[in-house]
Amino acid sequence: MKANDSLLDLLFEAQALDRIPRSGFVLRGVAEPESVTEHTWHVLLLVWMLGARIEGIDVHRAMEIALVHDLAEVRIGDLPRTSSHYFPAGAKREAEAAAMADILAPVADRALPLYEEYQQGTTPEARLVKACDKLQLMLKVTVYERWGTGALSEFWDNPDNFPDGGFAVVQELFEALRERRGAPG
Amino acid sequence: MKANDSLLDLLFEAQALDRIPRSGFVLRGVAEPESVTEHTWHVLLLVWMLGARIEGIDVHRAMEIALVHDLAEVRIGDLPRTSSHYFPAGAKREAEAAAMADILAPVADRALPLYEEYQQGTTPEARLVKACDKLQLMLKVTVYERWGTGALSEFWDNPDNFPDGGFAVVQELFEALRERRGAPG
Amino acid sequence: MKANDSLLDLLFEAQALDRIPRSGFVLRGVAEPESVTEHTWHVLLLVWMLGARIEGIDVHRAMEIALVHDLAEVRIGDLPRTSSHYFPAGAKREAEAAAMADILAPVADRALPLYEEYQQGTTPEARLVKACDKLQLMLKVTVYERWGTGALSEFWDNPDNFPDGGFAVVQELFEALRERRGAPG
Amino acid sequence: MKANDSLLDLLFEAQALDRIPRSGFVLRGVAEPESVTEHTWHVLLLVWMLGARIEGIDVHRAMEIALVHDLAEVRIGDLPRTSSHYFPAGAKREAEAAAMADILAPVADRALPLYEEYQQGTTPEARLVKACDKLQLMLKVTVYERWGTGALSEFWDNPDNFPDGGFAVVQELFEALRERRGAPG
Amino acid sequence: MKANDSLLDLLFEAQALDRIPRSGFVLRGVAEPESVTEHTWHVLLLVWMLGARIEGIDVHRAMEIALVHDLAEVRIGDLPRTSSHYFPAGAKREAEAAAMADILAPVADRALPLYEEYQQGTTPEARLVKACDKLQLMLKVTVYERWGTGALSEFWDNPDNFPDGGFAVVQELFEALRERRGAPG
Amino acid sequence: MKANDSLLDLLFEAQALDRIPRSGFVLRGVAEPESVTEHTWHVLLLVWMLGARIEGIDVHRAMEIALVHDLAEVRIGDLPRTSSHYFPAGAKREAEAAAMADILAPVADRALPLYEEYQQGTTPEARLVKACDKLQLMLKVTVYERWGTGALSEFWDNPDNFPDGGFAVVQELFEALRERRGAPG
Repeated sequence: MKANDSLLDLLFEAQALDRIPRSGFVLRGVAEPESVTEHTWHVLLLVWMLGARIEGIDVHRAMEIALVHDLAEVRIGDLPRTSSHYFPAGAKREAEAAAMADILAPVADRALPLYEEYQQGTTPEARLVKACDKLQLMLKVTVYERWGTGALSEFWDNPDNFPDGGFAVVQELFEALRERRGAPG
Repeated sequence: MKANDSLLDLLFEAQALDRIPRSGFVLRGVAEPESVTEHTWHVLLLVWMLGARIEGIDVHRAMEIALVHDLAEVRIGDLPRTSSHYFPAGAKREAEAAAMADILAPVADRALPLYEEYQQGTTPEARLVKACDKLQLMLKVTVYERWGTGALSEFWDNPDNFPDGGFAVVQELFEALRERRGAPG
Repeated sequence: MKANDSLLDLLFEAQALDRIPRSGFVLRGVAEPESVTEHTWHVLLLVWMLGARIEGIDVHRAMEIALVHDLAEVRIGDLPRTSSHYFPAGAKREAEAAAMADILAPVADRALPLYEEYQQGTTPEARLVKACDKLQLMLKVTVYERWGTGALSEFWDNPDNFPDGGFAVVQELFEALRERRGAPG
Repeated sequence: MKANDSLLDLLFEAQALDRIPRSGFVLRGVAEPESVTEHTWHVLLLVWMLGARIEGIDVHRAMEIALVHDLAEVRIGDLPRTSSHYFPAGAKREAEAAAMADILAPVADRALPLYEEYQQGTTPEARLVKACDKLQLMLKVTVYERWGTGALSEFWDNPDNFPDGGFAVVQELFEALRERRGAPG
Repeated sequence: MKANDSLLDLLFEAQALDRIPRSGFVLRGVAEPESVTEHTWHVLLLVWMLGARIEGIDVHRAMEIALVHDLAEVRIGDLPRTSSHYFPAGAKREAEAAAMADILAPVADRALPLYEEYQQGTTPEARLVKACDKLQLMLKVTVYERWGTGALSEFWDNPDNFPDGGFAVVQELFEALRERRGAPG
Repeated sequence: MKANDSLLDLLFEAQALDRIPRSGFVLRGVAEPESVTEHTWHVLLLVWMLGARIEGIDVHRAMEIALVHDLAEVRIGDLPRTSSHYFPAGAKREAEAAAMADILAPVADRALPLYEEYQQGTTPEARLVKACDKLQLMLKVTVYERWGTGALSEFWDNPDNFPDGGFAVVQELFEALRERRGAPG
């Protein structure tokens, strides 16, 4: 598998991201589940909205991180969560980094540092994107439950799905989601 | 139809954008066509890539414009191109603006000026997003033709689908797409 | 957008109506929602069944009205209900009429008066078709709720969805639907 | 399997017709093929259009025949054409008639004579519906070929797919279809 | 419809089995229902697992029976259960046998005795496959109910769906399924 | 992720295999691509047919290998081929083996040796299943190309897709496929 030679190669490859359904929903019986592309746009929307409400966040860089954070899946696939138990520690992370380097080769200078920042997760921007990645998951879980599609209750029982990244605004949104879930209609 | 009261209302409403298929592809027989959400993410990717190659572009603001540019469709629908011949001049534009105001009410201060800028189309950022909106269309047309789905040749004959916004980098990409179309396999 | 020149043009264009899903169901998360074509056939069935039970109805003309009543959507789209709040009063109605004139040009003499009668809604036949248009909606809502797909409860709260057109047989069917909804299994 | 007791039972049962894809298209790889309901509406449209151009046709009765002609499939299924080679002569026909009697029981007086007339195929109205049943098939084949979906060439080689019912207007439309197939784009 | 001439013809024809959805699920509103192919693989898995736990079963032959037991549906279709009330007694059985003979012609010597054994249902192997055919049905019903898709309760009320074939291990699995159905989450 | 405790746990988990589309087809734009379950059944059919034509093959054991060979994908996913370039050598293989051990725990004694035999690929039975795994791939590629769905030509250029396992009957079938591809209609 070679690195993309041009912007156009990269752009064509990225189109296929629309056809990759999110495996967590597929395996739990959601009909017509969201694609990785759709997930990513919603994360961007969250980052843009919440970033502006958090002091000290560089919203622009956070959006750039969100924009590319799942692109590796076009070569690696959207591995189900269970898969991580079976690969050596760090293998998935390294595979994604290597795939990212090849996919994003035509814009390596700008893109790879963003991805590296996301993987390390130490800057506020990276933490915000990681929190929004799960916030988007739980938003969609809430919507799918309202629509009556899929067996999704276990998502609510997993504390890993509720990282607030240390941001009050994220924590409040998770709490609002829990309340919304219990609400009628 | 009322304005959204909270970020959470806005976020829930935006989820349905994933279920709105792009009407231009639906009506031409594309199987499993992209959603409005997917379209939007690809426009963001283009804006981020090309914006950095154009002098004087504020990539951040261009990304923000792209992020929200099609949100009105969750209340208006993705009207087929033919519909514009039957509505009074400007009616669709005004309907979208009014819908945007209600959808984006919880972030009105930041979001509505972006949308207004997009509609007026006079800043370089707005022109870039408009160009990328069509560039994304033609990228997907090229991909769908390669996949053998849909009767899409008329898209290539419509000059409105090739706006370069005055940017050489966009024009080059359109030309590369035309060449790619003619290439084997 | 030009008027159809021949029966064959009209017939080809009408095929695409099968690919337009009903937006009210799409936006509420129904999986594999009915198409506009499917909706229309069920309205025809209702009109044929109920029309014969109402004194003074010309069932034939009512069926003809039903046959064509949603054809404009192939050029206008199936606009979500919310869209009507954002277009000028009457704009959608006029757009549909103009689209109908172009779509049905090869059979204009027979078809356009039928559509005009439907829009004015004053004859018993037009009122029956309008009532059956909603009766079909609520029948499908009941079926989808039984199937467990979509978040559809708000349809039951909207009085506009229960027009009886002044016909007892329609009113009875709406009442039977409400009872059926509450029934087990 | 019992007969329907009420109009409402019949109406509920008929909803499932939307979920039955036409087997001839399914088996030849068409993506998202039309449903039996969609087929039926297009037959109605054809009957209404062509019937008015044929002297001596009772368009109303022809439309009624078309309306119900495939309803038995909700209990029998849309058997693939190949199945008829394996059932005893007349078995499918009798099964459909018996299913029709149960499905349409609440409107038996009006509906069953229509279906019987269709099966016997001797009146001009029955012949017209039978011709339009195939005309609709070949219209859809033409559209699917243009859309690039399915391996459908054998439909053109089967003379049974081109019955003109003795009507010049039908014959002309079949010829126009053949020409359209050969035309570019 | 002629018999397959070669292995390759048979193999090509069998591919279409993937596109035939199981009619019992289609008619009850299951979204994205399993195909006949998928059903068959699950029956094989059951037969392989349970066969080894039943004394005197030739697991190999039972697997072969399961492998081919539904192949006739590629020519006959997956007739809904209701259809059997409308065909003459034995007609469906004979149609399937005749279709099997044509489909499996290139491997007739090995395959047809397996199918005949299945139809007669007197050997322990045939009884096991028949039991697993229903066990698979009820497993999928349980899964679909958990996923919230389709109106499936009537499957639980039909004693024909719980044949144990005289095997304790099958009976236990049916009982475990009933318990699982009642269990939370 | 824990090992399955009972047959029933295993059986439930296996149902989700139906929802995992084959990634090679997804990424190349095939509409409604086959599932892993469907792939597996076709491999079984091939093994059963070809095994009987090869001297010295234990068809029974080969079928058992085929039955379970892809079950790990329900926990690992159907990783796209490109992913193997990014994981450490052997990582995917070890992950699958570990996942298999957990999935198949209730039948470990019978199942795990079969999988190990498949991975080592030294017995004639394992070689036959591996050959049929690719034969099935190319059969489906041929069918999808005939149906006009997906951009699949590169499959024909990859020699890894044509392993004959040293069996003349497999080699002949690959050659017949290549000829069939070039044949009209």
